[in-house]
Amino acid sequence: MAKGASLSGFPEWLPQERAVEQKIIDTLRRVFELHGFLGIETRAIEQGSSLLKKGETSKEIYLLSRLQEVGHESDTPLENRLGLHFDLTVPLSRYVVENSGALVFPFKRWQIQKVWRGERPQEGRFREFVQADIDVVGNGDLAEHYEVELPLVMVEALERLGKYGLPKATVHANNRKLSEGFYRAVGLTDVEGVLREVDKLDKIGADEVSKLLVSECGADETQAAACLELAEITTSDAQELASRFDALCDKYGVDKDSDAYSLAQQGLSTLAHIVADAASIRPGAVLADLKIARGLDYYTGSVYETFLDGAPQLGSICSGGRYDNLASQGKKKYPGVGLSIGLSRLLSYLLHTVGATASRQSPAAVMVAVWDEASRDASNSIADALRARGINTDVSPNDAKIGKQIKYASKLGIPYVWFPANDAGEEATGDQVKNIITGEQSDADSMSWIPDTVYAQQAISIEE
Amino acid sequence: MAKGASLSGFPEWLPQERAVEQKIIDTLRRVFELHGFLGIETRAIEQGSSLLKKGETSKEIYLLSRLQEVGHESDTPLENRLGLHFDLTVPLSRYVVENSGALVFPFKRWQIQKVWRGERPQEGRFREFVQADIDVVGNGDLAEHYEVELPLVMVEALERLGKYGLPKATVHANNRKLSEGFYRAVGLTDVEGVLREVDKLDKIGADEVSKLLVSECGADETQAAACLELAEITTSDAQELASRFDALCDKYGVDKDSDAYSLAQQGLSTLAHIVADAASIRPGAVLADLKIARGLDYYTGSVYETFLDGAPQLGSICSGGRYDNLASQGKKKYPGVGLSIGLSRLLSYLLHTVGATASRQSPAAVMVAVWDEASRDASNSIADALRARGINTDVSPNDAKIGKQIKYASKLGIPYVWFPANDAGEEATGDQVKNIITGEQSDADSMSWIPDTVYAQQAISIEE
Repeated sequence: MAKGASLSGFPEWLPQERAVEQKIIDTLRRVFELHGFLGIETRAIEQGSSLLKKGETSKEIYLLSRLQEVGHESDTPLENRLGLHFDLTVPLSRYVVENSGALVFPFKRWQIQKVWRGERPQEGRFREFVQADIDVVGNGDLAEHYEVELPLVMVEALERLGKYGLPKATVHANNRKLSEGFYRAVGLTDVEGVLREVDKLDKIGADEVSKLLVSECGADETQAAACLELAEITTSDAQELASRFDALCDKYGVDKDSDAYSLAQQGLSTLAHIVADAASIRPGAVLADLKIARGLDYYTGSVYETFLDGAPQLGSICSGGRYDNLASQGKKKYPGVGLSIGLSRLLSYLLHTVGATASRQSPAAVMVAVWDEASRDASNSIADALRARGINTDVSPNDAKIGKQIKYASKLGIPYVWFPANDAGEEATGDQVKNIITGEQSDADSMSWIPDTVYAQQAISIEE
Repeated sequence: MAKGASLSGFPEWLPQERAVEQKIIDTLRRVFELHGFLGIETRAIEQGSSLLKKGETSKEIYLLSRLQEVGHESDTPLENRLGLHFDLTVPLSRYVVENSGALVFPFKRWQIQKVWRGERPQEGRFREFVQADIDVVGNGDLAEHYEVELPLVMVEALERLGKYGLPKATVHANNRKLSEGFYRAVGLTDVEGVLREVDKLDKIGADEVSKLLVSECGADETQAAACLELAEITTSDAQELASRFDALCDKYGVDKDSDAYSLAQQGLSTLAHIVADAASIRPGAVLADLKIARGLDYYTGSVYETFLDGAPQLGSICSGGRYDNLASQGKKKYPGVGLSIGLSRLLSYLLHTVGATASRQSPAAVMVAVWDEASRDASNSIADALRARGINTDVSPNDAKIGKQIKYASKLGIPYVWFPANDAGEEATGDQVKNIITGEQSDADSMSWIPDTVYAQQAISIEE
């Protein structure tokens, strides 16, 4: 991270680190476009009334005031004030409603943008970070198959980051209908409360969650035990998922004619479909994991979290789910499903734990030397000839001794230094180019020379 | 622009418009990297103390407050509050100082990001917009040749946007030292005041500016006339520039031994160099235009504005200059020179005046049809085979009648519809692909088929 970064929670990257971020963004965008997602951006600013809607992050917003309004901020009610978006899902919902007449549904979109969370500064928490999202939003309804396909697109995208050192990612999927149906079927009514407590399992453990279910959600010991047993079910096998769920229902005497059980079965069916399809296309990529709750967010069906092998401390790096009620216009609903990669945290992990780095600071493959300032135009002409053929080229900042010019190229990681022709009497030469990594030097013509493939592009490597 | 855009000054684009913006950004980035600029991003948020430094836009900042702080905002002094950056130059200066130990100088960087201006909403003014900047920042000193080269890089970048309908761009250059030296040489002392009034020439005309020079800046009629005559000098010929300036100095009896004249000559020399070099590399691209003032900004040497042929109403679309005093650390200075494209305004012009549009909404070249939901996996496999070979591919959202599926592809502008093999008795066929624009249909193999070049990519075209 940029060393002097003077504001806690607002990461900035050095050029060589930013090059890694740029490659990640390019890679994700490529995968999203391969799958036919349309790219959009939404404004960074939303109205308070949008931001303060339900959602676990809505308490962490940054509100804005114009310099001229300072001291009078409170004259404006919160709903009418402007604030920075805290995710890309709430803005998407607004965008879809506002532009419904101009969009083709189902609307598949990708979006990579910064978001802001107005939290207290804490170690390791970002207050400004980049999210990379894909969502599909339907007009009125949305087919279930998108709940199967979207996590697989994200798995494919994350797999492509393997070459930058990202470990294998596994999507853990659950379904709100399954959880809610089961909780209701065993007689619990505070579904939100139960989800909130179950969401704490990884942090505080089963015993504490059990106590909270009793003290906060009106559960008895048996009901608390049922919730915890449900949360223990983890499998990548659709058959096993169904049979373990059935066994649990039998154990706790669930009425299989009840509406609650039927709701749970809806969720189970979607989840089984996700797991089965994933197993045939990308074995091991998706796991049913019935403790995944996603806190108090706006999800109504599938929910997803994604973990990296060997990096549990990172938590979920790609989360999302299905939301049926986030966007609506009169009676019309726009149900959606989507996932969001927390890109900045991922980048930080790749840079600082994995040791990913750009092969060089500069995008340039060549630096043209300058014999003296009077001949800078000649050096510029060579550079322009190389650029016209697509070769990224810098020119020496000065006409210092050649050793110093080479040092400048070397510090930037530029592999080739180009020496323009000189007519210095007996030592006259034509244009020459030197690979300052291998030491190889040869005659060269700016109209035809090309760099060796291995040195042509800024690439990402992993430090041993 | 997205029709429903509900917040004045915060533009959002429909997918087909956003595709144009993305192509522009990709094109600019390509040119900047060809010239060896390093890409960085800075955080969107700066401390009040940075934002409130001198600069004509610093009165238009958005300040932030966390939701929890509402009502107590005024407890924090402005300098300690956070705000959104209003340009990319002030953040660059901070970034360079903070990371000076890790950067290679001269530091050449490109940066394309959103900025915000907390102005009152006005017709046609953006409060959130994208800027595309290049700058070179030196450590201690900075060679003059960058003042020549940077506007030419921008001209090259803008030229490449010609294929999206951008008219020819001309950089109008001036030099603060030239203006200041001349003003002082004719006896004026309120240099900033004179620059501020001269900056209004295009808006209010020479007569009004003349009055203001007298009433606001202590000029007499002769001095005001001298300023206006200086502002009339426009030429792309370095010789003519020097001789017209000299004639003006003679006319107003300037003392050629004075410090003021010597300062003016320094500025003249740089400007002449810019014009001469540009004339040899890109004739007509750069014009000396001595009325360019850049208001109260932080510039100390060259200043640039860029205008499009036939679009004076747009004003300058790419502005900048040399700043020697923006960044410093103790006694060390980091002088810089740079230019900034107002990308959102440019995009708005291309979309709404020129009629630039993406050839299709979707990046996909192919949509694979789905005979029935039971065979969706087969359609997905075909799509994955095409994607593995780099072909952007969507899959039909449903198993509606083929006519309806084709209509979905057609609305998204996807040129090819793929029909998976079907074993429907006598009508059985292998895989087939249909170009729904030409009507051509043929057998196809997902392992080898490629789209016609003209239909392969989303492209930008200009409506007649």
